[in-house]
Amino acid sequence: MTVSDPQPHAVRRGRESRQAARLARSFESEPYLTRLLAPVEVISAEGLETIEHHADTLLEQVGIEIGNYPEALEIFRGAGADVTGSRVRFPRGMCRALITASAPRTFTQRARNPKRNVVIGDPYMVLVPSYGSPFIHNLDDGRRYATIEDFRNFVKLTYMSRTLHHGGGTLCEPVDLPVSQRHLEMVYSHIRYTDKAFMGSVTHPTRAQDSIDMAKIVFGSDALESEHVIMGLANANSPMSWDFNMLGSAKVYAENNQIVLVTPFILGGAMAPVTVAASATQTLAEALAGMAFCQIVRPGAPVIFGSFASSMSMQSGAPTFGTPEPQLVLFVMAALARRLGVPFRSGGNFTASKVPDYQAAYESAVSFMATVMAGVNFNLHTAGWLEGGLSIGYEKFMLDEDQASMTSAYIRGVDLSDNGLALDAMLENGPGQHFLGSPHTLANFENAFWRSNLSDNNSFEQWTSDGARDAAVRANARWKQQLAAYEAPPIDAAIDEELQTWTTQRRANLPVSDA
Amino acid sequence: MTVSDPQPHAVRRGRESRQAARLARSFESEPYLTRLLAPVEVISAEGLETIEHHADTLLEQVGIEIGNYPEALEIFRGAGADVTGSRVRFPRGMCRALITASAPRTFTQRARNPKRNVVIGDPYMVLVPSYGSPFIHNLDDGRRYATIEDFRNFVKLTYMSRTLHHGGGTLCEPVDLPVSQRHLEMVYSHIRYTDKAFMGSVTHPTRAQDSIDMAKIVFGSDALESEHVIMGLANANSPMSWDFNMLGSAKVYAENNQIVLVTPFILGGAMAPVTVAASATQTLAEALAGMAFCQIVRPGAPVIFGSFASSMSMQSGAPTFGTPEPQLVLFVMAALARRLGVPFRSGGNFTASKVPDYQAAYESAVSFMATVMAGVNFNLHTAGWLEGGLSIGYEKFMLDEDQASMTSAYIRGVDLSDNGLALDAMLENGPGQHFLGSPHTLANFENAFWRSNLSDNNSFEQWTSDGARDAAVRANARWKQQLAAYEAPPIDAAIDEELQTWTTQRRANLPVSDA
Repeated sequence: MTVSDPQPHAVRRGRESRQAARLARSFESEPYLTRLLAPVEVISAEGLETIEHHADTLLEQVGIEIGNYPEALEIFRGAGADVTGSRVRFPRGMCRALITASAPRTFTQRARNPKRNVVIGDPYMVLVPSYGSPFIHNLDDGRRYATIEDFRNFVKLTYMSRTLHHGGGTLCEPVDLPVSQRHLEMVYSHIRYTDKAFMGSVTHPTRAQDSIDMAKIVFGSDALESEHVIMGLANANSPMSWDFNMLGSAKVYAENNQIVLVTPFILGGAMAPVTVAASATQTLAEALAGMAFCQIVRPGAPVIFGSFASSMSMQSGAPTFGTPEPQLVLFVMAALARRLGVPFRSGGNFTASKVPDYQAAYESAVSFMATVMAGVNFNLHTAGWLEGGLSIGYEKFMLDEDQASMTSAYIRGVDLSDNGLALDAMLENGPGQHFLGSPHTLANFENAFWRSNLSDNNSFEQWTSDGARDAAVRANARWKQQLAAYEAPPIDAAIDEELQTWTTQRRANLPVSDA
Repeated sequence: MTVSDPQPHAVRRGRESRQAARLARSFESEPYLTRLLAPVEVISAEGLETIEHHADTLLEQVGIEIGNYPEALEIFRGAGADVTGSRVRFPRGMCRALITASAPRTFTQRARNPKRNVVIGDPYMVLVPSYGSPFIHNLDDGRRYATIEDFRNFVKLTYMSRTLHHGGGTLCEPVDLPVSQRHLEMVYSHIRYTDKAFMGSVTHPTRAQDSIDMAKIVFGSDALESEHVIMGLANANSPMSWDFNMLGSAKVYAENNQIVLVTPFILGGAMAPVTVAASATQTLAEALAGMAFCQIVRPGAPVIFGSFASSMSMQSGAPTFGTPEPQLVLFVMAALARRLGVPFRSGGNFTASKVPDYQAAYESAVSFMATVMAGVNFNLHTAGWLEGGLSIGYEKFMLDEDQASMTSAYIRGVDLSDNGLALDAMLENGPGQHFLGSPHTLANFENAFWRSNLSDNNSFEQWTSDGARDAAVRANARWKQQLAAYEAPPIDAAIDEELQTWTTQRRANLPVSDA
């Protein structure tokens, strides 16, 4: 069914101007999403209790190994844990009690532009771009190492997105810069080229501290005592270990009252047993220890309970994505986080594919839809992820960002108001008569259906005459168009100068050979 | 993480032989799936009651228009409906009472091979290929009209699939055959080239009767009195209308004790108001009338409650797929079918894309995952759908079929047995030690994770040295490989001869110009 089109060129111009209007609405979009749809529960409360009980058994009997970080051992010992050598064992319930006593259920991360502040926790959802890839992929260059220019490009594309609420962190690794100095350029780019909330460095506690110091220049030193303006992502060294860099960085964020995203990274069969329930149990145990650590360091410091689970090819050992088992882990973890009463992080649009093809999209959608249905609060890796995270794709970023914009409509659920039920509209309409001109349709059509800005729903003939471009080719044009149209948000000149002076001095004190 | 590979060629041969073994397991696969995961509910029981009440209001006040089919008016009048002209209005609750009095909650469709009989209804799930496309698409030919050879190819590919449980019906329209005769070749192909259950013709009641008569030759005339061996798909002429061809064909199937799949086809904004709740209300009303009709014709005749909902572009009027609103409709309809107590049909892997690209896969996965989570019992359009159903793709078919094989693992849910919880495995494993050689891993790894047969999870380097083939290119090789390896299932020679004699005689009596 197509509406007859007597003036194709006029309609075409109309379509383009409407599209431009939609893209421009970037700056009117919601700063974060609010969930009305109930999260999916895949196991009963009894099942969740069993997993919680087993996680406590692991913490009590196996405990957590702390690598090369005596201060953390003392911190845990001081709070009542049993420390033997570098192993920390926890009395049953100790970690949970520490977290529930002081960790906030929801909190606000302030952005440089207060209109972009995000609220993290139930029933909210914050969409965040991909994180951590050393490579980029696009249709022009294929796959190559990422540079700081790529990093800035993804900062800009994220800034211009009306779907992504948060600027993210290590959007890609700028491998053209020395490891010791990368974080300075990344944090500066997050401050200068966007005004969304962002994440700092966690690759060493001193780099975490640099990130905090730069945030103080932007937001004011005192602000950090009462506000949360920066976040660090701390991954456990699964199974049942935390290392100095991650836990030490977590300590820097927590003691500065800033946000720590505590994420066990579980490749089932490698870092945990191959089953869903075991992956969930171990993730819970490791996350409990990490979040409890932050609460000991500074009671009330905001933490996010993270889960990253993937399956693996038992033939090659390669991680696999978009498979059913990690989605089931995700549903279980989200339920466990709700019971604990802290915000939950997972994500995203995951794939093992090397290019933005059918595999990439299918795997991404399967993993992303679980995110949508599970009730994730902070959704990392929403856009760009390729090749198991080794690569971030420019086209993939645009395609994911576009599809992820449906989340708002999905988690709004079903409108059962009189307007939503539309009984009168149906009673007034005769059998066999279409509703295109119905007053109810005319009153609602503008926002009735979510629409993609990159999908092609035209006829085969129209699509062919438009160049028969597949989705990746359309996305290639789109990111170039977006970057060409980018304009930096304003920044106070004095702050910018202070930041540049500070980073120049700091860079001079950092060895370029430091890995 | 990759397991070290000291003998790549030996491993490669091992991988290929394992892949061959997996493909050969086609004939050992489950005949249908059993759901353990609870279906997702998106609105409360009160909301569902409101929709049910409104559907009855529509049936009572607007009623159903019956096009050019006086006999149906008499059938409805005889059962107590109010008939004025060609409009049938139903006393509140009449349709529901007729259905709940006699329609079976679950039933078996017999296949030519009894090992492939499918049970339709809760908690089972039957996956069925795409239906009704006049065009095919593949990487070799692009898009062109479908032929009877294409039809047979898809019959064969469906037969060889270990994921698709049912042979489906009009896999594509063989437009090289006269409309009046197509159904004979299609039904014959379903009987001869596969041994899975199948669907007959519904384009005219006489063609429905031909389909029934051919089924009688295969299964025996008496068998149809006690068994269900063929199915017809009857679409409502939404809004609130049923026409002679569809309802007349439904009557033929029902009076022969065969299965009628009753499906309102709603393009929101065109055939119903633009809201989710209204689409659900109207779908329920139209389906209730159709299913009640079958129960009047023959109490106890098996019916399936179908729903096909899509959104539309309010700019062009083009149908759109993989958008959030139709998925919400699907969740509501599945819940309404459970309350009514009849099997529920929906599906599948829908897209508006013209080619198997990122858009096609993302839209397909979003719609298919809703199917998986909603508790669909009979899942049409599981594999092949392109271009809003105008086209069935060879590569798309293989890719969808492959991805849909995950359903089994997904709806099995979370294993909370001792083996699933795996507490001992975690207690025996030291922090930082991988689980690859753990006794629990070794005992479970073979079936631990669902695996795709078409996804590439290898390293970028391995993928490049394998030819850097994207998913569609890999699927192109796969369907050719499958067709080359096809062997027809056995058939009794006397039955085959009788069928051929019957269809030859019948064909001689059908005008080739009849549309």
